[in-house]
Amino acid sequence: MNNFNYRNPTRILFGKGQIAAINEHIPTTANVLILYGGHSAEKNGTIDEVKQALGDRNIETFSGIEANPSYSTLMKAVTKIREHKLDYLIAVGGGSVIDGTKFVAAAVNCSGDPWQEILVNHAKDIDHALPFSAVLTLPATGSEMNANSVITRYETNEKLAFSTPHVYPQFSVLDPTKAYTLPEKQLANGVVDAFTHVMEQYLTYPSNAMVQDRFAEGLLQTLIEIGPELIKNPQDYDLQSNFMWTATLALNGLIGAGVPQDWATHMIGHEITALHGLDHAQTLAILLPSVLVEQRDKKHDKLLQYAERVWQLTEDTEETRINLAITKTRDFFEQMGIKTHLSDYDITEQDIGIMVKQLNEHGLTQLGEHNDITLDKSQKILQASL
Amino acid sequence: MNNFNYRNPTRILFGKGQIAAINEHIPTTANVLILYGGHSAEKNGTIDEVKQALGDRNIETFSGIEANPSYSTLMKAVTKIREHKLDYLIAVGGGSVIDGTKFVAAAVNCSGDPWQEILVNHAKDIDHALPFSAVLTLPATGSEMNANSVITRYETNEKLAFSTPHVYPQFSVLDPTKAYTLPEKQLANGVVDAFTHVMEQYLTYPSNAMVQDRFAEGLLQTLIEIGPELIKNPQDYDLQSNFMWTATLALNGLIGAGVPQDWATHMIGHEITALHGLDHAQTLAILLPSVLVEQRDKKHDKLLQYAERVWQLTEDTEETRINLAITKTRDFFEQMGIKTHLSDYDITEQDIGIMVKQLNEHGLTQLGEHNDITLDKSQKILQASL
Repeated sequence: MNNFNYRNPTRILFGKGQIAAINEHIPTTANVLILYGGHSAEKNGTIDEVKQALGDRNIETFSGIEANPSYSTLMKAVTKIREHKLDYLIAVGGGSVIDGTKFVAAAVNCSGDPWQEILVNHAKDIDHALPFSAVLTLPATGSEMNANSVITRYETNEKLAFSTPHVYPQFSVLDPTKAYTLPEKQLANGVVDAFTHVMEQYLTYPSNAMVQDRFAEGLLQTLIEIGPELIKNPQDYDLQSNFMWTATLALNGLIGAGVPQDWATHMIGHEITALHGLDHAQTLAILLPSVLVEQRDKKHDKLLQYAERVWQLTEDTEETRINLAITKTRDFFEQMGIKTHLSDYDITEQDIGIMVKQLNEHGLTQLGEHNDITLDKSQKILQASL
Repeated sequence: MNNFNYRNPTRILFGKGQIAAINEHIPTTANVLILYGGHSAEKNGTIDEVKQALGDRNIETFSGIEANPSYSTLMKAVTKIREHKLDYLIAVGGGSVIDGTKFVAAAVNCSGDPWQEILVNHAKDIDHALPFSAVLTLPATGSEMNANSVITRYETNEKLAFSTPHVYPQFSVLDPTKAYTLPEKQLANGVVDAFTHVMEQYLTYPSNAMVQDRFAEGLLQTLIEIGPELIKNPQDYDLQSNFMWTATLALNGLIGAGVPQDWATHMIGHEITALHGLDHAQTLAILLPSVLVEQRDKKHDKLLQYAERVWQLTEDTEETRINLAITKTRDFFEQMGIKTHLSDYDITEQDIGIMVKQLNEHGLTQLGEHNDITLDKSQKILQASL
């Protein structure tokens, strides 16, 4: 096991009806901005429920945070906070709204240019942020219990990530009933996203981290068991609650503590989204099987362990088990309704060059747990994904 | 899954050499009291290592905290803190030292009688405590990453527990090499203690908490895999690191969030220790198998799941699988060198009455996840443990 420094201070208020508990965990004098995406959070009553829980506090709202939240939209929220002298943020939504709120929380008192300071410089000089919390409505990214965020600048086709301990949510409400009305596609995306988060931290090389492995395998097994049922029965409380807690634990730092991590699938995927607008999870479903194939020699031992413990593949030769485990991974994504080839999204061989060029421009020239996924290898992975 | 409110703010500094990192996480102006047990922490150099990491800070020490830490010893530490106006505590040791330090941290500024306010009243009016951290040298209780503590008052044969969020360690150093020189018996006790902590939160009745179940099973499997090897090779870094992290995760709130919990084994065990001085883990090894037998009908579904997933028992009738799982549990404890019958410790049928009387005096008359372990049942469990 590698040395690690792990701390996750976010409180989780889990279960039906927990929005009402917000009141106990926010200062009574707070001047609150509620940030959210489209009209669904208004229509399904969640915004009203949050407002009611906040009682007499001063409340403003900011809507319109898009999927893959944009710098320009978020800077409008920053302006509103400054104008109204607000001091507490509540994100109501999924990973995009929460990621966006993290950026806003860090940007409000940022002395320099927020894009430069927070995204380009990876928040290394950020020493504080507005306190904020989240009400999760779309399980997927784990943003509700981590300090990571990904922001897109559409004018320049850039999608960059940052992380700083100052943007852990103070608390997150995980009420499974809030995901009941999600479209099937969003639930499927969420399952694939959470699954890939676990794989990025698990499917590398053995590091004698027995508990992290067992926990990761438990999360993968749970997603495989509930995923196909969930999209058929989105209003099943047991399924939604297990999905919601699994997606949170998939990326809250716990299974990644003390182990090597990959993240090549995510990094290459960000470029696909930035250039072609695919959903984040679609890019993961396309790329993960290709990354596993390209890196199968270096990932050999963990691929075998994955085959045995997650897919119960113990017969046949090692190579056959590994092939089958990768095939089952792809089949699982397809079973969730997510297409796993670039061509399914009208992306062709001609588009690969520009994606590789973007990887180069963003300095993403040595990806993966061995830093050995160079631009050449990324190109091969993209070609194998056609 | 039941609703839950989960937060664990303790930072974990994990790995060889991490004591040096203390310096970054304690105020430079802190006036520190280092609390520890016997001479082993001095002899093996850990106390010096902590002092060196603290640099120029004002440092006092307090030694002599015993296994099953006593109220009278701890109150001497309280006096020392008040006299020297100390404001930061560092516990160096295992669960007893850390539990004791939690009591001290809460007692220093306690307005009333500390025994009454903190133990008898379950700390319900405690609203602050001195900040403190831990350097773990004996993996077992999980005290390094939770807010629980058990204190003994020997004059009255009382052993009581308290918990308050004010006594989470600010950080805990988990350096596996610090456990290299532990006697085999203490390592074995630690394994049994951690194993039973998981069982108390897992082996109840199904509550559709799929992830908590998988995590609990992963911890149990890890302990079964490494336990017997660990006592043979205590200086194996991989074994010690996996044991240390497993023991911490066994009782840091995570696997217990949103699930029913038992704790009858612990509650009855505390009375055995208070009256007969057995090690905490010995009482657990004696009682857990008897509790599982006594409650086998109500625990039927989880016993079957435990048999299948933890012990790979899938053949034979359900009853046979359950019998075998309970037998294997007892055998595992014996394999670790911990005797599992009261008679092994010269406790006889004549001693049971007073233990049941003590349970009654401490209000422990409705134990277990169904509150159905009355004094009669506790008596049966103790008799079955002879």
